[in-house]
Amino acid sequence: MNYAEESLKKHYEWRGKIEMVSRVPVDTREALALAYTPGVAQPCLEIAKDTSKSYELTRRHNTIAVVTDGTAVLGLGDIGAEAAMPVMEGKAVLFKELAGVDAIPLCIRSKDTDEIVRTIQLLAGSFGGINLEDIAAPRCFEIERKLKEVCDIPIFHDDQHGTAIVVLAALINSLKVVGKNADDIKVVINGAGAAGTATSLLLTAYGIKNISLCDKQGELKSGESLAQTMRGADVFIGVSAANCVTTEMVATMNKNAIVFAMANPIPEIMPDAAKAGGAAIVGTGRSDFPNQINNVLAFPGVFRGILDARAHDITEKMKIAAAKAIADYVNPTAENILPSPLDKGVAAAVADGVKNL
Amino acid sequence: MNYAEESLKKHYEWRGKIEMVSRVPVDTREALALAYTPGVAQPCLEIAKDTSKSYELTRRHNTIAVVTDGTAVLGLGDIGAEAAMPVMEGKAVLFKELAGVDAIPLCIRSKDTDEIVRTIQLLAGSFGGINLEDIAAPRCFEIERKLKEVCDIPIFHDDQHGTAIVVLAALINSLKVVGKNADDIKVVINGAGAAGTATSLLLTAYGIKNISLCDKQGELKSGESLAQTMRGADVFIGVSAANCVTTEMVATMNKNAIVFAMANPIPEIMPDAAKAGGAAIVGTGRSDFPNQINNVLAFPGVFRGILDARAHDITEKMKIAAAKAIADYVNPTAENILPSPLDKGVAAAVADGVKNL
Repeated sequence: MNYAEESLKKHYEWRGKIEMVSRVPVDTREALALAYTPGVAQPCLEIAKDTSKSYELTRRHNTIAVVTDGTAVLGLGDIGAEAAMPVMEGKAVLFKELAGVDAIPLCIRSKDTDEIVRTIQLLAGSFGGINLEDIAAPRCFEIERKLKEVCDIPIFHDDQHGTAIVVLAALINSLKVVGKNADDIKVVINGAGAAGTATSLLLTAYGIKNISLCDKQGELKSGESLAQTMRGADVFIGVSAANCVTTEMVATMNKNAIVFAMANPIPEIMPDAAKAGGAAIVGTGRSDFPNQINNVLAFPGVFRGILDARAHDITEKMKIAAAKAIADYVNPTAENILPSPLDKGVAAAVADGVKNL
Repeated sequence: MNYAEESLKKHYEWRGKIEMVSRVPVDTREALALAYTPGVAQPCLEIAKDTSKSYELTRRHNTIAVVTDGTAVLGLGDIGAEAAMPVMEGKAVLFKELAGVDAIPLCIRSKDTDEIVRTIQLLAGSFGGINLEDIAAPRCFEIERKLKEVCDIPIFHDDQHGTAIVVLAALINSLKVVGKNADDIKVVINGAGAAGTATSLLLTAYGIKNISLCDKQGELKSGESLAQTMRGADVFIGVSAANCVTTEMVATMNKNAIVFAMANPIPEIMPDAAKAGGAAIVGTGRSDFPNQINNVLAFPGVFRGILDARAHDITEKMKIAAAKAIADYVNPTAENILPSPLDKGVAAAVADGVKNL
């Protein structure tokens, strides 16, 4: 199927993938008086006395905003607020269908960090959490850091932490399959943007000590090339660009190498080529190869969990718990390290992991 | 029924009166690929090329924001962003149920005019229109004026224009009943806040020449008292405070006087008292008296109309067309000058009026 053409056709048919519906009747004068004036004054007054009642008397307990500035949308880059909306609506669909979360897409017409932060901060009282989406690095780091300081609701940049959680889940299960310990392994991460940086931090929090982070110029500390850095590594994690890894480079890795080549749509190395270099396990971002590493496994359940727990923040411990829950959901084999992104049980398991810490 | 107590109980049961739902399937890998990645890239690119395509490829054509700063909520005053949400959710319910409009409630934690304007301006690309709600005067005037300058979508402050439209509709039909002409009448408006000011402007645009606007200090230009100003008037419009008008004051009005006493929950004068003073027609804001003057008759249809027409602004002509459509919807009598707020046909008639100018 030509997905581009067919998807465009479908979008013209759909004219929007989400809609707001009413949960209450307003078909009689009495119903109107209860849902609206004059009755509605009483719940308003209760919240005015105690703001936390907004989680009981309005939809805040189940509602998040999916916020972007449209600067790093899919692989398309800076396409603007309006053009980002089809992705944000898609995300809202997944939040609802997989985890029952009401997600409101908001696309901001600004690229100014402080202005984006202020806009979200002023709206935080209307939501139970904020999912940041497709905001370019390095701005995304500062926006998230500042929002965590000024907001009393959880802030989660999915391109960073959603990816990091699913990579950690894939790694936990891959290590089980090849019989290695997280303590002893050498990990190379290629790509020092949002996803690579967050993955490096989460793997460190999980207890992995030997992590080399590379960008186009090579390893960040030593300056060695990617090829040099990959020698003797147990794990390669690519969140970078198509075809930057060769069979020969994989062949220099340690025995039973694990290769996650997640560049989209063309991976850093194709699965067959990685296996030809001796890789024991290969994962990509694509649904047409085994071992799809897709952050849809993480974000719905993470928000279900923090909303249910009414958490004020998303911690490293929660992210690790989410990764473990995803990993524990399957009995891993080399061709099946992760659950299917369509399995509706995953989000519930992740939510349980996050809220039962 | 004790509406306050019963409504609070219902709100605890409902835990939110609205929710976001999906309009598309994501139950197979193929469906996921069409609604989300990789297919979704194509509609994104189409919008990036031509922003107006956002009205065809996303839900923007049917979606508005209902925005407040929580400073003038019902008769409760400045109760804050979170406490305003039950009203905004109620409004979203009415938008959907009466006119099929998807309304997203956004409560802003700021009382600074420029900050509120900037927040809404930055989000305007996500919506087809903005309904401002329960923002205190005089800030509401400046916020609306500035937003109309900087936004390419319609801006409508319901407390001003929704009220003005329904008052004009009620007046048109009342004049039919008592057999007076709009050209010849003297109108007194008591209350120079959002609703009173906008009503004065819309009645002027409609062609009424003799309008006296009063506040607590009396008539704005002459300084005369309300009692003095009401002498010989044909129409009294109250958007002010309980019990500020007496039977004696109504008795000094012209023959076949029209009294709209819309203070909530206690009117400026009770209907019986106004009739004792000789009023031919009395309307209030309440559902338990005849002739309820409720802006729910206006806002759903106004937005249905401007969304369908993809209008960039809401003009005085559109507001007058909306008022005429409401008025034309009934054969008026002294006890029945307006349609029922629950009549689902009204919004469609208003929408037709607005878009077929």
